[in-house]
Amino acid sequence: MKFWNILKARRLGIDTQKEHVAYVRADSHVIISEGFEALARVRIKKARLSIVASLHIVHSNLLSRGELGLSEMACASLNVKDGDKIEITHLEPLVSLGYIRAKIYGKSIDDKGINEIVDDVVKGNYSNIHLSSFITAFAGAHMNLNEIISLTKAMIRSGDRIHWKEKVIVDKHCIGGLPGNRTTPIIVSIVSALGLTMPKTSSRAITSPAGTADTMEVMAPVNLSMEKIKEVIGKQGGCIAWGSGANLSPADDILIRIERALDLDSEGQLIASVLSKKVAAGSTHLVVDMPFGETVKLRSIEAANHLKILMEQVGHAVGLKLKVVVTDGSQPVGVGLGPSLEAMDILAVLKNENNAPQDLKERSLLLAGELLELSGYSKLGKGYENAEKVLYSGDAYKKFIAICNAQGGFTEPQFAKYRHNILAPKSGTIQFIDNRKISRIAKLAGAPDHPSAGIQFYSPVGKKVKKGEVLYTIFTETTGELEYVLQYVNIEKGIISVK
Amino acid sequence: MKFWNILKARRLGIDTQKEHVAYVRADSHVIISEGFEALARVRIKKARLSIVASLHIVHSNLLSRGELGLSEMACASLNVKDGDKIEITHLEPLVSLGYIRAKIYGKSIDDKGINEIVDDVVKGNYSNIHLSSFITAFAGAHMNLNEIISLTKAMIRSGDRIHWKEKVIVDKHCIGGLPGNRTTPIIVSIVSALGLTMPKTSSRAITSPAGTADTMEVMAPVNLSMEKIKEVIGKQGGCIAWGSGANLSPADDILIRIERALDLDSEGQLIASVLSKKVAAGSTHLVVDMPFGETVKLRSIEAANHLKILMEQVGHAVGLKLKVVVTDGSQPVGVGLGPSLEAMDILAVLKNENNAPQDLKERSLLLAGELLELSGYSKLGKGYENAEKVLYSGDAYKKFIAICNAQGGFTEPQFAKYRHNILAPKSGTIQFIDNRKISRIAKLAGAPDHPSAGIQFYSPVGKKVKKGEVLYTIFTETTGELEYVLQYVNIEKGIISVK
Repeated sequence: MKFWNILKARRLGIDTQKEHVAYVRADSHVIISEGFEALARVRIKKARLSIVASLHIVHSNLLSRGELGLSEMACASLNVKDGDKIEITHLEPLVSLGYIRAKIYGKSIDDKGINEIVDDVVKGNYSNIHLSSFITAFAGAHMNLNEIISLTKAMIRSGDRIHWKEKVIVDKHCIGGLPGNRTTPIIVSIVSALGLTMPKTSSRAITSPAGTADTMEVMAPVNLSMEKIKEVIGKQGGCIAWGSGANLSPADDILIRIERALDLDSEGQLIASVLSKKVAAGSTHLVVDMPFGETVKLRSIEAANHLKILMEQVGHAVGLKLKVVVTDGSQPVGVGLGPSLEAMDILAVLKNENNAPQDLKERSLLLAGELLELSGYSKLGKGYENAEKVLYSGDAYKKFIAICNAQGGFTEPQFAKYRHNILAPKSGTIQFIDNRKISRIAKLAGAPDHPSAGIQFYSPVGKKVKKGEVLYTIFTETTGELEYVLQYVNIEKGIISVK
Repeated sequence: MKFWNILKARRLGIDTQKEHVAYVRADSHVIISEGFEALARVRIKKARLSIVASLHIVHSNLLSRGELGLSEMACASLNVKDGDKIEITHLEPLVSLGYIRAKIYGKSIDDKGINEIVDDVVKGNYSNIHLSSFITAFAGAHMNLNEIISLTKAMIRSGDRIHWKEKVIVDKHCIGGLPGNRTTPIIVSIVSALGLTMPKTSSRAITSPAGTADTMEVMAPVNLSMEKIKEVIGKQGGCIAWGSGANLSPADDILIRIERALDLDSEGQLIASVLSKKVAAGSTHLVVDMPFGETVKLRSIEAANHLKILMEQVGHAVGLKLKVVVTDGSQPVGVGLGPSLEAMDILAVLKNENNAPQDLKERSLLLAGELLELSGYSKLGKGYENAEKVLYSGDAYKKFIAICNAQGGFTEPQFAKYRHNILAPKSGTIQFIDNRKISRIAKLAGAPDHPSAGIQFYSPVGKKVKKGEVLYTIFTETTGELEYVLQYVNIEKGIISVK
């Protein structure tokens, strides 16, 4: 340790999300002695804690020469207070970047290489530039089966792993892209009301207006520790938690930020993301809902079947009993898009309300039935019937409220402050809906970051509408977002076609 | 324009290199109204000037609620003073990102698509995450011939273009990777002494310890405006300038920063980078030096011939007369590695000193001869002889000094403050030299950012050495770098093998 490497910490209060940033004066001794330049990757140590940060060079009196400014994330990771002694040094070369280069040049990467990459990702050793290169190099169809298996295993190893007393732990997942397809809370309520164990952990949205975790969070806390998840399961047999809260597959949460910025969500990474969370959560039996359609992630039945086979192969390799169910993805499910509005649909189904979305109910019963059969609870062909019975009796709703209370208390979903109706421009029949554009409208309205933002959608394909009838309603929490989304709706063509 | 989108500028003095960063308080009206989150990409306007920036959210009193902090680069791009009124708005969706996604999924991208990408790159519309994804998706062997031609043309269009009165404009380029191969200033001096026009523009180093521009900058200014280049050529017929100073192919300079962070420098991007600079500089006749060897960029004669054919095809498509000369790349050229130390070698050759590196002299004469023949100045087979004559007469040296003076004045290269000899561990013959590791040592010593840092290398393959004899000397400008590089030398195996 050299004297010029030691600086006094200063919390600058700058939020750079998950990227660690360190700020140092251009004329400080450490810059001159070590030859650091702007955006260099450096190692920052406080006693035994150590992180890697990007260096921003300061040419003003924002800092004194002996100070080291730190971003919010860097302060949190090092548990830093103003005045703490911090050591800053060169970063040892990252060997794992060589595997990314090799992949770019068409080579296959083995278990060891992929494990080293994921290890560096979780330690925060990669800058956003490196993370983006990793995601891009392994995107598209560039990963082979063995690499996907390796990535899945590495991501499982990257975090904690839950072990259960029960031999059968059931789980369900939907390959996203179909707006409003929010069956999970309903399925968890049905199967746990029948005595199965379903500790569901979900991701937040990547490119959609809401993930299951975003929607559930409207009704109950989802950021649960592993102890809390075990407590909820012990009491109720089911839960719906955010995966990251339990430190399951933390690599996934780091990569998702970059995938979102790139609007990229590809095959191998998708399988590894899904299955690593499942295995880490201790699941043994998994049903995957795989919708296909012209404007969802999987455009054709061929694409869905390709992914189905690959996913079942990887699932088998990591020890899961897996059934993929290919479903219709031609239009949004339910009425609401966005966390709060989807939560309202879920409650309507669970409470057997007359106006509950029938498509959401039927998809939930289908998947719950498959899960009951896969797990051995129901005889073949009897799953749907068993699921229906427990939903209609009201037991599924009671179970859902009990789960919410066990997770920290139930909250009723609320409507957003501002709303605006979009009307049919003429009379006719709904011919086509662009799910991607509908999702984009809900996102521009503020979902999922503003939970009550989104849309309610009243015009499925085939419906006859009159000129001036409401096609959908946009909800926003701010006027800025409302203006912006209306500008988009006015300019964009082909969202819904009426003929 | 809405009132909450207008903030007062505040120069924070933070250097984030070429990335524009804007800093706003979490509780400012614009954040709440527009729903911005950290790392969002936003458009920042001052009157008619407009840039795209990454948003860093501030949770402290660093700024007031009505202020917008700006990084150094953002201040420069908008010509901002404290208190200026600045508008901040949502960024319109970047259509060109769709082409990158299509490329990742294996599709070919046409002229229009590649042009839109390069246009967004030059405008600064891409974040580092997007730039990294673009470079990675088009790296390796992922670009086809048409895409490389499109990229080359788009990069030519991205900046200024120089037009010359003379019909024949000669030029020369080396596909890097061979340390110390600094023939350019010698070749320019020889051919311009014979009356040819050679307005040489070069890049800075990507992954090597010095680029031609870095080395030349030690002896004369290289950051020349187009007017200045024309003035120098008018007087002397030759110059050696940094491409970016003249705004030739500015996209290249943006991409190089990210390629450096990724340590990635691939085929299609390499061809586009080289040829776009040449065409933009108005070159008509080009000789390319393409060394191959076990530890340079091109590992084998097959790889060199593959790149030679591809480069000649692209050159033809953009209207260049091109000759690629495949050369020996088995060991470093000359004695010095690093800008100042390479400059000393160049001067020794030009001054016909007895201890001048013979390999550097011979390579320079070979390439100058090829250029004299390609341009029609020399008869076939007479180029080398003509080049030799003008070097030995001292006319080439006189021409070099005249060029330096025309560029702004000649400066003698200096040795660095600190030096350390690396000794032979035993007596024997030099069997093998790892050029990559030798380059890495020069880089760790501080080259090219510290111009006088680097190494002097005294032990070519085949030389007999005695135990304790100096193999090479390391030069650094700081003790921090010296300690660091010695740590590397002590740990790393296989740099030079003596048997």
